[in-house]
Amino acid sequence: MSIRVTIWNENVHETTQPDIAAIYPEGIHGAIAEGLSGLLGDEVELRTATLAEPEHGLSEEALQNTDVLLWWGHLAHDQVSDAVVERVHQHVLSGMGILVLHSGHFSKIFKKLMGTTCSLAWRNEAERELVWTVAPSHPIAQGIEQPIIVGQQEMYGEFFDIPAPEELVFISSFAGGEVFRSGVTYTRGRGKVFYFSPGDQEYPVYQQEQIRKVLANAVRWAAPSSTERQIPEVSNPGTGWFERR
Amino acid sequence: MSIRVTIWNENVHETTQPDIAAIYPEGIHGAIAEGLSGLLGDEVELRTATLAEPEHGLSEEALQNTDVLLWWGHLAHDQVSDAVVERVHQHVLSGMGILVLHSGHFSKIFKKLMGTTCSLAWRNEAERELVWTVAPSHPIAQGIEQPIIVGQQEMYGEFFDIPAPEELVFISSFAGGEVFRSGVTYTRGRGKVFYFSPGDQEYPVYQQEQIRKVLANAVRWAAPSSTERQIPEVSNPGTGWFERR
Amino acid sequence: MSIRVTIWNENVHETTQPDIAAIYPEGIHGAIAEGLSGLLGDEVELRTATLAEPEHGLSEEALQNTDVLLWWGHLAHDQVSDAVVERVHQHVLSGMGILVLHSGHFSKIFKKLMGTTCSLAWRNEAERELVWTVAPSHPIAQGIEQPIIVGQQEMYGEFFDIPAPEELVFISSFAGGEVFRSGVTYTRGRGKVFYFSPGDQEYPVYQQEQIRKVLANAVRWAAPSSTERQIPEVSNPGTGWFERR
Amino acid sequence: MSIRVTIWNENVHETTQPDIAAIYPEGIHGAIAEGLSGLLGDEVELRTATLAEPEHGLSEEALQNTDVLLWWGHLAHDQVSDAVVERVHQHVLSGMGILVLHSGHFSKIFKKLMGTTCSLAWRNEAERELVWTVAPSHPIAQGIEQPIIVGQQEMYGEFFDIPAPEELVFISSFAGGEVFRSGVTYTRGRGKVFYFSPGDQEYPVYQQEQIRKVLANAVRWAAPSSTERQIPEVSNPGTGWFERR
Repeated sequence: MSIRVTIWNENVHETTQPDIAAIYPEGIHGAIAEGLSGLLGDEVELRTATLAEPEHGLSEEALQNTDVLLWWGHLAHDQVSDAVVERVHQHVLSGMGILVLHSGHFSKIFKKLMGTTCSLAWRNEAERELVWTVAPSHPIAQGIEQPIIVGQQEMYGEFFDIPAPEELVFISSFAGGEVFRSGVTYTRGRGKVFYFSPGDQEYPVYQQEQIRKVLANAVRWAAPSSTERQIPEVSNPGTGWFERR
Repeated sequence: MSIRVTIWNENVHETTQPDIAAIYPEGIHGAIAEGLSGLLGDEVELRTATLAEPEHGLSEEALQNTDVLLWWGHLAHDQVSDAVVERVHQHVLSGMGILVLHSGHFSKIFKKLMGTTCSLAWRNEAERELVWTVAPSHPIAQGIEQPIIVGQQEMYGEFFDIPAPEELVFISSFAGGEVFRSGVTYTRGRGKVFYFSPGDQEYPVYQQEQIRKVLANAVRWAAPSSTERQIPEVSNPGTGWFERR
Repeated sequence: MSIRVTIWNENVHETTQPDIAAIYPEGIHGAIAEGLSGLLGDEVELRTATLAEPEHGLSEEALQNTDVLLWWGHLAHDQVSDAVVERVHQHVLSGMGILVLHSGHFSKIFKKLMGTTCSLAWRNEAERELVWTVAPSHPIAQGIEQPIIVGQQEMYGEFFDIPAPEELVFISSFAGGEVFRSGVTYTRGRGKVFYFSPGDQEYPVYQQEQIRKVLANAVRWAAPSSTERQIPEVSNPGTGWFERR
Repeated sequence: MSIRVTIWNENVHETTQPDIAAIYPEGIHGAIAEGLSGLLGDEVELRTATLAEPEHGLSEEALQNTDVLLWWGHLAHDQVSDAVVERVHQHVLSGMGILVLHSGHFSKIFKKLMGTTCSLAWRNEAERELVWTVAPSHPIAQGIEQPIIVGQQEMYGEFFDIPAPEELVFISSFAGGEVFRSGVTYTRGRGKVFYFSPGDQEYPVYQQEQIRKVLANAVRWAAPSSTERQIPEVSNPGTGWFERR
């Protein structure tokens, strides 16, 4: 059975800035979809969703039919409705995987999952980013070059205010000398969370084969073992309940 | 310089149920204060705060003068104002330590810090709880007996829906066979977080010397190295800024 | 391509104690093989190896053809040759998965991988063990009952002197009240390590379906993504080497 | 009571290479001692020990009187006797703290504590190293500049084959673009372990105030809470032993 993937993108830069539209004519979501489709083929069933759609394209039904959600946002974090954020949160805790990308570090959903400010240092000067694998046997690092070279990219630097990652997969350095924990995993409830920082609207990062491969690996890694959603719940069992099953 | 500790308690059971008031005549906060005072003496400067006070006793000024906040709540989680929760959250991220106790697992502040449901299994049948140390060199475990025996206690059992702890210090077993990760640490922003489950309103747990010792150790552990509050912030430094300091 | 599994057992109890041979007529390795075969079928290619064989059945060639090694030992840890232990260690660091079982906590290979004493508390009084899942979305916990009930088992208790696990999957309680971190994962070099404590020679634990399912899940989890063995090595690259690839 | 610190240095470069002796006229151990003495004063009781001394200056008595051991080695790892390594290992597991420095990553004791190859990439071209704090509330990071600038240093790069750190405190970048997990903590038995990579014999790194401050912080952090040594041991307690204490 294929992994049902929803790629969410606010899709604001691409629809309002011709220079960004030139880089991502099909939108950032389109470029990511192209990458995942090429690498994963029938293994995934892809759909995209954007801010402008009703319920941002993330209705209850849409999420029930999503195994892994990718999230790209930047300018419009505040325009994402709290009700949709709450719904996404419930689905992650119930087992849906989520990949949060680049400026998504400041999205409502990521901050809600992390419990921290998720703030960082940044500088947009088209610096070279090197993405180093520090967990070579992690599923997300399979087949990834050491290092991935991103020719031009916005710098994201430490201190990145996130909880200590469960697994630190990638560390980036930038031409200016800054470093960043650029690929980190968490579990929240029954759901898996992967944050991956490379990928800015101004540079064609999501068209790089190695970046696409990381995302493809991460989709596989974050997919739940079951399509059944089950939020962790309070229970009040009697003594020895397990012997009477 | 002493550690400035604020012990917050919703103080509802004690003021509405005579049987609970009999166990905790000075309130749960009073019993905890007595314990910390006896073990830490001048090392701490103690105050208490309760739900009924203006701003729940947690004004901006009160928090600025708090190095470590203890939090006990149960019946009235929903009555804690969102503004106060937000304020406490900001202070934790800025460096204030927080110890969340027992039924505080379901408090707004703990759920906000964790990003999960914080749900668990429970059963109130006065079961024996054994608290086992699994990190004997952790500062919070110093001088603690292996195991701590709590004669009667509400059972809290797995699955406890929290993020994987940064440090797992204590695991409890209950007479009925359930287990619980009963002492866990996290960092959020610049603040340290310790959750410790033993301690129910119906049993005199906070009058046990060993339980008090855990709390005293945890106060020391969670105290920030500096009284200066500083929330992690976004910065936008120029290339090579660090060479021009 | 199937996962090549080698089940190693010292096979001393079964060949010297008729009462143990009655429980495990095909040896502990035989019972484990039966379980994995039933659950994984063609997904695995199984072989067994024992202490008495030349090189304990773990020649260089045998290890090169092993994706995941299971290790059960108890009486004869000291009879395992240092050369074989060194060889197994090199293969784990190069990518081979290893599952260390029950009394294998005191094997030379486990102590070498952990760097600690691996000591624990024990008591053999046929106590009920309950194995609780604390990481429900972990691949090793898929389809596992909460809790697994092992009717009779040797007690293993804390403090278990192991490094803090990368992932804590299972915690056990025993009838006598002790607890134990009974399912823990590590990475060492490129290899994955899983220690799982249920399984004593005196009780038919490896004939329980749920215990077999844990081992089957763990075999899948520990299998390397590539059959190529590659030990992490020192390198001395020139500046900018990655730009000249 | 002061923390009893032993600074161990193989002291080979300094006694055989005049250019190194010029940088470290009192030896690397002397420079470190000077730094700790200046920052910690009476808080520490310092002694040094070197390879050439009987038992490398690490007799049983010397270790019994050491709370925290610092370890610098490079050329002569193989000349350290296995008996001394075993003794140091036992003391760490029993509670003695250890700080392993720079090329000590390849020392027998560090490899024994880690269970991995501890291999890495390196290049000695006097590159600028930037040491970034990623755990600002960690005791070892108190008062440390973000970043520490080491003007000239040997490059150490990923993949560094160590177990996933319990706490990742520092990440370094180098002028050539490589990154390195340069400050990492572990617990082994009852002992605390800190590895810190800045510090090569060819550059006066241990004369930098900020580097000295990291080591001073780490000495405090690694000091055991008790001078009593106690290795984790196997026990065989009867049922309910804890009720009969």
